[in-house]
Amino acid sequence: MNKILIIFVLLTISILVSQEKLSQEKSPDVKMLEKIYQKALEEGVCHENLRYLCKEIGGRLSGSDEADKAVVWAKEVLEKMGMKVTLQEVMVPHWVRGDKEEASIVTNETSEPINICALGGSVGTPNKGIQTQIVEVQNFDDLKKLGKEKIKGKIVFFNRPMNPRNVNAFLSYSQAVGQRTRGASEAAKYEAVGVLVRSMNLRLDDYPHTGTMGYKEGIHKIPAAAVSTNDAEKLSSLLKKQGKVTVRFKMNCETLPDKKSYNVIGEVKGSEFPNEIIAIGGHLDSWDLAEGAHDDGAGCVQSMEVMHIFNRIKRKPKRTIRIVMFMNEENGLRGARKYAKIAKEKKEIHIAAIESDSGGFTPRGFSIDTTWKRIEKMLEWQSLFAKYGVYAFFPGRSAADVGLLKDGRATLVGFKPDSQRYFDYHHAATDVFEAVNKRELELGSATIAALVYLFDEYGME
Amino acid sequence: MNKILIIFVLLTISILVSQEKLSQEKSPDVKMLEKIYQKALEEGVCHENLRYLCKEIGGRLSGSDEADKAVVWAKEVLEKMGMKVTLQEVMVPHWVRGDKEEASIVTNETSEPINICALGGSVGTPNKGIQTQIVEVQNFDDLKKLGKEKIKGKIVFFNRPMNPRNVNAFLSYSQAVGQRTRGASEAAKYEAVGVLVRSMNLRLDDYPHTGTMGYKEGIHKIPAAAVSTNDAEKLSSLLKKQGKVTVRFKMNCETLPDKKSYNVIGEVKGSEFPNEIIAIGGHLDSWDLAEGAHDDGAGCVQSMEVMHIFNRIKRKPKRTIRIVMFMNEENGLRGARKYAKIAKEKKEIHIAAIESDSGGFTPRGFSIDTTWKRIEKMLEWQSLFAKYGVYAFFPGRSAADVGLLKDGRATLVGFKPDSQRYFDYHHAATDVFEAVNKRELELGSATIAALVYLFDEYGME
Repeated sequence: MNKILIIFVLLTISILVSQEKLSQEKSPDVKMLEKIYQKALEEGVCHENLRYLCKEIGGRLSGSDEADKAVVWAKEVLEKMGMKVTLQEVMVPHWVRGDKEEASIVTNETSEPINICALGGSVGTPNKGIQTQIVEVQNFDDLKKLGKEKIKGKIVFFNRPMNPRNVNAFLSYSQAVGQRTRGASEAAKYEAVGVLVRSMNLRLDDYPHTGTMGYKEGIHKIPAAAVSTNDAEKLSSLLKKQGKVTVRFKMNCETLPDKKSYNVIGEVKGSEFPNEIIAIGGHLDSWDLAEGAHDDGAGCVQSMEVMHIFNRIKRKPKRTIRIVMFMNEENGLRGARKYAKIAKEKKEIHIAAIESDSGGFTPRGFSIDTTWKRIEKMLEWQSLFAKYGVYAFFPGRSAADVGLLKDGRATLVGFKPDSQRYFDYHHAATDVFEAVNKRELELGSATIAALVYLFDEYGME
Repeated sequence: MNKILIIFVLLTISILVSQEKLSQEKSPDVKMLEKIYQKALEEGVCHENLRYLCKEIGGRLSGSDEADKAVVWAKEVLEKMGMKVTLQEVMVPHWVRGDKEEASIVTNETSEPINICALGGSVGTPNKGIQTQIVEVQNFDDLKKLGKEKIKGKIVFFNRPMNPRNVNAFLSYSQAVGQRTRGASEAAKYEAVGVLVRSMNLRLDDYPHTGTMGYKEGIHKIPAAAVSTNDAEKLSSLLKKQGKVTVRFKMNCETLPDKKSYNVIGEVKGSEFPNEIIAIGGHLDSWDLAEGAHDDGAGCVQSMEVMHIFNRIKRKPKRTIRIVMFMNEENGLRGARKYAKIAKEKKEIHIAAIESDSGGFTPRGFSIDTTWKRIEKMLEWQSLFAKYGVYAFFPGRSAADVGLLKDGRATLVGFKPDSQRYFDYHHAATDVFEAVNKRELELGSATIAALVYLFDEYGME
């Protein structure tokens, strides 16, 4: 609590100081941010880049042809922006959904389809599918209470909803997602034959939301699928009414041998401090059910846009700017691991690394993982952002890819847009270009570019 | 600038004070806001109310059958919430769009349709339509420069886009909307025969956006229509290419005699200060092209939700709470005028009046029209809202309906959600229920209810 108090005191002082400055004349930083936001809103290309990535390439799961195309595309875009581009080789998992994904509620007379999708990494079912009763649970404790006796041979149905109370939707996600990532392994301990998991979605609709899952070593691998929130509600109410519900589901997803892929890294050397690197990134891969527009096409094109904006305002960076398109965030983090490993081997100094991977929504602030001293420095910048509706600089985790660069020196930053709509789209067929608002996306680009400008201008020591 | 400085100092102190409080134990206000937000997010009915208003009733322009149905519906909803409901009679304009609204670009060989809609209040064209050349202008000065010689007998095409630079989209609207409201009268001075106005829309799409317009007294009335932004771009580029462009447009809209309608006013008397009124409102009427979901169905159901939340938290108001559904904000403000007139006649004391009429988007803050002393008092509350992402309490205009209650005593408040997406929907066929996110709407309701709680608890003197 003391630390929070310190932040507020500092914020306060910084607001007062900057206000005093403003009352005389605009500081160079104020003017620079004005230029950055104007260029983003008037001459931005991130929306058109996103259209291309979504509509001309589409969903780009690691190992897919589309992921290969996205690598080629990203290289071209970054080169056109005047960057030196490196393709950093990395072997990625190659899971494929297959073409036989279906489920239904079975009674003596009828068979009523429900909306499911395989979770990424799941094994398939036998060819004829799995047909058996479902057992509804809220969490892993419930499994223990029921025991093998009641679970053996059945399908475990994990139905804990995301908590609607949290204002931060990502908090609700983190509280619920264990069912998806570890549910199959936990259920297998009690000899369940499959799992259905309520989709990570705060609203009720018909779209199943995929996402990564894994099997604990040595555990029997059972197939795992997400079920739409509407169908999860239906299954649950049928169970209450009838006591027993039988479901049949079939999937022929499988994991193929690893495939070669790449991180795409654009670089412009700094004119004064070339050894100090500022990395900005998103992940190029996406799930396969839609176009990966918010997750994470938006983060990719916003990162690229930093260079576009710097070019438009004729900013020659003092420090080295890297735009990093990470491969395989969704189901492996192999790209981020490779990038971090090579950076360490080469003893590269990342003074800051920013990731945009929370959707292309209206910007709110940054989550910052660094020392208190550096956070204090950044809080001096906070008031510069207030007039753009960006007010929240808070200590916290950054993001999946740049998080691996943690070394005590790098300031790691997660860009934080408004989170309310994110889980309407996340990993579902709804995550398409049309779901991204041009102005919200552009304001996010400008916000990231503004922070990069400040890192570049003032450094982080 | 001094005043802004004072606000920041006060804000600062209030943050520090509240943080200190928090570091000990949660204050009753902190706990109350937690309850309010929780109830809104978990047990809210505003989204279902909005569905009914949009889907079962639909667009409800003043004087329409749908507006009548909305009055009946609002009365029922407020009565079910335990309020005493009054219908306050008011005569409203009755403009109807007609069924023959079309336009096209005409050449010798072809006729290419363009998307237009009549502006509210416009006269129709002759039966056979108007066919003549268009003259593109950016503003009224351009009209003066061109003069009668170049305008007479032609259609004036107002094509000044909304400025994309402004972060606040409403600022861009206010800078551009004069073309729509006054364009016909200005063009008629130079004997134009009609006007086409670029839609008030920040993005490029095919939807024309209607909205109110008027004729100066004594001026010849010429028909006025909005054209979609895509078609505005097309007309402009054709003019650049060809020099001359001929457009034909036809509309049979007309203004019928005024009709009887109502403001719907729900009231719960205060237990301690019944003479001190806190009014919360939105406008029940909407344009006719869609469902009036953001404008202003959202504001209506959010206002109603304040009572729902108070019921759920078992709050008996100390002061008198009024939920006011204003009639005819869009094309006349007759309802607001009537409400203000009666309030004045009865010497009612409104200590505060809040309006939600900026869309059902994620909440950002409030624009407050009152004395500096009262703003200082409200700034002490600001930090309570920070954890809900609501941070902006700023002095400014409130909103169209409650703005008329200005009397030196009432604190007038405009609820301010994020503005980026508003003009994608405003007055266009896109303003439907599906465009409103449930959580964003609910967070707005909670934010308004929280402010009402504070007004009710502490008063405003």
